[in-house]
Amino acid sequence: MFNILIVQILIHVITHSVYGAASDIQLDAKAQSNHRLDSLNLLCYTLLLILTVLTIWLFKHRRFSFIHETGLAVIYGLIVGAIIRYSGGTSQVVNMQVFVDQSKYNSSFPPDTLSLYMPKPAGNKNLTFQYVFRNEIDDIKENEIDLKATFDPEIFFNIILPPIIFHAGYSLKRKYFFRNLGAILTYAVIGTTVSSFVVGALMYGWVQLMPARLANSFTFLDTLYFGALISSTDPLTILAIFNDLNVNVNLYALVFGESVLNDAVAIVLSGSIQHYSKRYQLGTGGFEIKAFFQAVGDFCEYYVLIKTYMTKYTRVRDFPLLESALFVLMSYSTFLIAEVSDLTGVVSVLFCGICQAHYTYNNLSEASRLRTKQIFELLNFLAENFIFCYIGVSMFTFPKHHFAPLFIFAGFICAAIGRAANVYPLSFLLNLGRQPKIPMNFQHMLFFAGLRGAMSFALAIRNTRSEARQAMLTTTSLIVIVTVIIQGGATMNLLKWFKIPVGNSDETEALSRNGSHSDSTSRSDPNEPFGPPERPRGNDKAFLARIWGSFDTNYMKPLLTHSRPTLLETMPVCCTPLARFLTTTEQITQPINSISGHQV
Amino acid sequence: MFNILIVQILIHVITHSVYGAASDIQLDAKAQSNHRLDSLNLLCYTLLLILTVLTIWLFKHRRFSFIHETGLAVIYGLIVGAIIRYSGGTSQVVNMQVFVDQSKYNSSFPPDTLSLYMPKPAGNKNLTFQYVFRNEIDDIKENEIDLKATFDPEIFFNIILPPIIFHAGYSLKRKYFFRNLGAILTYAVIGTTVSSFVVGALMYGWVQLMPARLANSFTFLDTLYFGALISSTDPLTILAIFNDLNVNVNLYALVFGESVLNDAVAIVLSGSIQHYSKRYQLGTGGFEIKAFFQAVGDFCEYYVLIKTYMTKYTRVRDFPLLESALFVLMSYSTFLIAEVSDLTGVVSVLFCGICQAHYTYNNLSEASRLRTKQIFELLNFLAENFIFCYIGVSMFTFPKHHFAPLFIFAGFICAAIGRAANVYPLSFLLNLGRQPKIPMNFQHMLFFAGLRGAMSFALAIRNTRSEARQAMLTTTSLIVIVTVIIQGGATMNLLKWFKIPVGNSDETEALSRNGSHSDSTSRSDPNEPFGPPERPRGNDKAFLARIWGSFDTNYMKPLLTHSRPTLLETMPVCCTPLARFLTTTEQITQPINSISGHQV
Repeated sequence: MFNILIVQILIHVITHSVYGAASDIQLDAKAQSNHRLDSLNLLCYTLLLILTVLTIWLFKHRRFSFIHETGLAVIYGLIVGAIIRYSGGTSQVVNMQVFVDQSKYNSSFPPDTLSLYMPKPAGNKNLTFQYVFRNEIDDIKENEIDLKATFDPEIFFNIILPPIIFHAGYSLKRKYFFRNLGAILTYAVIGTTVSSFVVGALMYGWVQLMPARLANSFTFLDTLYFGALISSTDPLTILAIFNDLNVNVNLYALVFGESVLNDAVAIVLSGSIQHYSKRYQLGTGGFEIKAFFQAVGDFCEYYVLIKTYMTKYTRVRDFPLLESALFVLMSYSTFLIAEVSDLTGVVSVLFCGICQAHYTYNNLSEASRLRTKQIFELLNFLAENFIFCYIGVSMFTFPKHHFAPLFIFAGFICAAIGRAANVYPLSFLLNLGRQPKIPMNFQHMLFFAGLRGAMSFALAIRNTRSEARQAMLTTTSLIVIVTVIIQGGATMNLLKWFKIPVGNSDETEALSRNGSHSDSTSRSDPNEPFGPPERPRGNDKAFLARIWGSFDTNYMKPLLTHSRPTLLETMPVCCTPLARFLTTTEQITQPINSISGHQV
Repeated sequence: MFNILIVQILIHVITHSVYGAASDIQLDAKAQSNHRLDSLNLLCYTLLLILTVLTIWLFKHRRFSFIHETGLAVIYGLIVGAIIRYSGGTSQVVNMQVFVDQSKYNSSFPPDTLSLYMPKPAGNKNLTFQYVFRNEIDDIKENEIDLKATFDPEIFFNIILPPIIFHAGYSLKRKYFFRNLGAILTYAVIGTTVSSFVVGALMYGWVQLMPARLANSFTFLDTLYFGALISSTDPLTILAIFNDLNVNVNLYALVFGESVLNDAVAIVLSGSIQHYSKRYQLGTGGFEIKAFFQAVGDFCEYYVLIKTYMTKYTRVRDFPLLESALFVLMSYSTFLIAEVSDLTGVVSVLFCGICQAHYTYNNLSEASRLRTKQIFELLNFLAENFIFCYIGVSMFTFPKHHFAPLFIFAGFICAAIGRAANVYPLSFLLNLGRQPKIPMNFQHMLFFAGLRGAMSFALAIRNTRSEARQAMLTTTSLIVIVTVIIQGGATMNLLKWFKIPVGNSDETEALSRNGSHSDSTSRSDPNEPFGPPERPRGNDKAFLARIWGSFDTNYMKPLLTHSRPTLLETMPVCCTPLARFLTTTEQITQPINSISGHQV
């Protein structure tokens, strides 16, 4: 299949010094200068992170709390981005433009690679250079900044997001999470969906009022996609302050649980919208079904994996280094397997984190527990600050920004309306059936805890092909920056303003939840801060949660971990041989609850 | 500067299904399939690592020791590589060949980017695609495998090597290292240089005897480069066995110390050879001077950094997470700064590791010490096994291999001769002046400890432009694989064969070094396994080491860490104000040696 075509080539040289015959030495020099540019890029972000860490330390040391580390990272990123942008052209990019003659190459699909065949002037050897497809561009001029301080958006999805999401799942405070599961699921699943559609519809209406060019470039699916990505929240700053001030644990659980799960919902929604838009244009249907099976598929798939971990871990625990390595590799492979099978890896890695914390954690040796916890803590810290630095820098250096003031203005308003449409109506409905009601000041706080973060940005930057998508990226970046800095910075004042009690310890909370704000005298065993969820707690637990808790303690935990009671005790007599097979010696010789009490 | 050229384009389509009008949806599908391919690549290596970890655990559990984890990683890598290679073409790569008309584009230098301008058949919008320079190629067919399971060689230098090298420096057992410093430096600096030149000269001679085509493609600088890269050793397997069996600590220090430092020497030498070849061809000189200043530059540069760390750490220690993050970021930035300033980052990060262990480690909080040690241990473990997996896989998938049997045969022989030329003559010379002589069986063990590893491979894969370099890569890969599997596997037998005593504890060694093989009765304090080097130990310490040790204890340590005696006690009276300024309150209130005894 060889076709000979006649095309025109247009060479657009931006700046370059070397002309004439190039030798291997010059190629070496070129490779070296590229290598230095790569190193410089990495160094730029490393230094930004160092600066952020040092400033955080200074602020913590001086007890300033009006700004969080992520806010700082964004601000430093903005400053450095502006410097890179306006410091003038040191870039040396030579671009050659190739025109395809359409009568010969009849696919408008871009080839994956281009080989540039260049006869050597000296005549001793012809050279062939390989070029790899990067992206679609609008304008040649863009190249100049394109190569500066930007990364492939795929890096966010494959490298930066997984540790952040995993850590969120791994560090869920399970007791309060399960106790408020109903409310959390309502906010995360129903609320995020409602918010997506509200934002999508409002934005679409607004766009129709705008000048014709802009109105035509947005489809309803575009604005719906925007609604989905802007509905995921990331209240890092607020949670850090809640943690420092010992704010009401139920409020903490609501804010944290919702933010963790709505990431998953937002990514499934946005994925479904993209799938749907493909199907719609290709003429096939299947919107909800796809999304549903996707989620279920993820669930089953990680679950099988989790099970295999369990059995493995019970024997590798003599070698903490191997155990930790296996833990990290297994968790990452869960993500990759989901991505390869065309499922959403983020959802998979989130539930992997939650399950690992619930079951696998108990099987780990003491050394590995500490090590994995610390490693993921550090990875999460670095990844999170990196992504916020990048949001700042990319405001200036990413070439695909499109500033549409009207769209940005509407974006801010609609994001707030969407958040309100999530929190207030659902809280009202929840309060109809819920025993410890969600008071009005908690609802306000939930509303203001709707900061946007890493997930919104990652979803927005992933696809910037059309002008509409570019305007969405710019709007999302600005919303992230403004909410992180302003809402994050105002948290302390908001807490005062809404009169939310602070300084409550764990157990005071449990009492104050029933209305009495007295100091607690009977504290629970401090060694079991997050005891097994089946412990009798009266009517403060939902029916569903009780059923799950009992199933979990009697079957899942004995099957997957070393905890007591064993399956021999919980399973019916007819299943004794099976139960004996599934129970380890270690498990039988263990005192009841000695392991399950160690959850963190 | 716009030139219009007429060129010919040749389209070479390997396999592809979609022809006709491509829409955004197809572009999306393409992006998605690329994303899945990337994920599949990563998954492939993640699963390989999981398999390696599980097998290591099984071997450790069953007490098999005939093969080390790196050997396993290589073997699994080879198997998977072969499967990928011969499992048939599932690749969908469309390549378009572009011919440059030389009369118009008068530089034979390749442009950095190509923009492919493609008028859309439907006519609604023209498309422009951007292509980025990847490398120079010989043959179009290569593409097919090129995109499978291979990584950019730069990844090894920027991501994989730094943690390995840093960890080597950070985990140097300092007492025995400093005690044998003279011998280690002799082997590492003089020995590696001798070995490089011996291998380079022998290979050049051999190549001249070979068929003319091959003989002409190798220059003396090429073979010298090969000599330098093959002279770096990586006796991981052997050190692991030494550690398990408690082999003589001086032998351990010699093997480990030499392997750590000869990496640095090999990279400086190979860098110098490349610089020299450039200078030589461009007509300027400055071979040794460049290398020397390069090394000194590295030294000073990291040193300034180290100092700044010190002062920082003393105050960030209240926040272990920030401290650990800073430690990791600072260490990585040392590497990047050196790379950006055109120095060798590997040397910089190695000395950074050594200095961090010597000074910074003492300033860290207890939590950070454990955390940083564990993190670097894990990173090192993963990076090391990844690189050995990759060596195995790339034997089959990397497109730039060139199998020249005669060159490979000569490579094996010359590598062995070069190693012998390092060990035996220098041991003879060292034994003339050294009090505890290096016995003949230790020399044999040193010779056989010359396994080749990550550094040789990374240097070989970095530049594969010419046929000579490709043959060198193939030879290096094979030498690494064979030495790691065969020499690594034979270590136990070699130890028996050479009658090297095993099972010696720390202090028995100190006695047996003076000839008496009796069991020790007076053991040193187990809490101070690696006490400060200034402790009086009779004549077992070299003159230079004594001077450095005293300078270190009296000035460097008080200046950089919190250890006693303080500068107030060690500096002359005239300098008291300065000393007071440099001494922290914490330092004065600390008992003598309370910190320096905690080195690990």
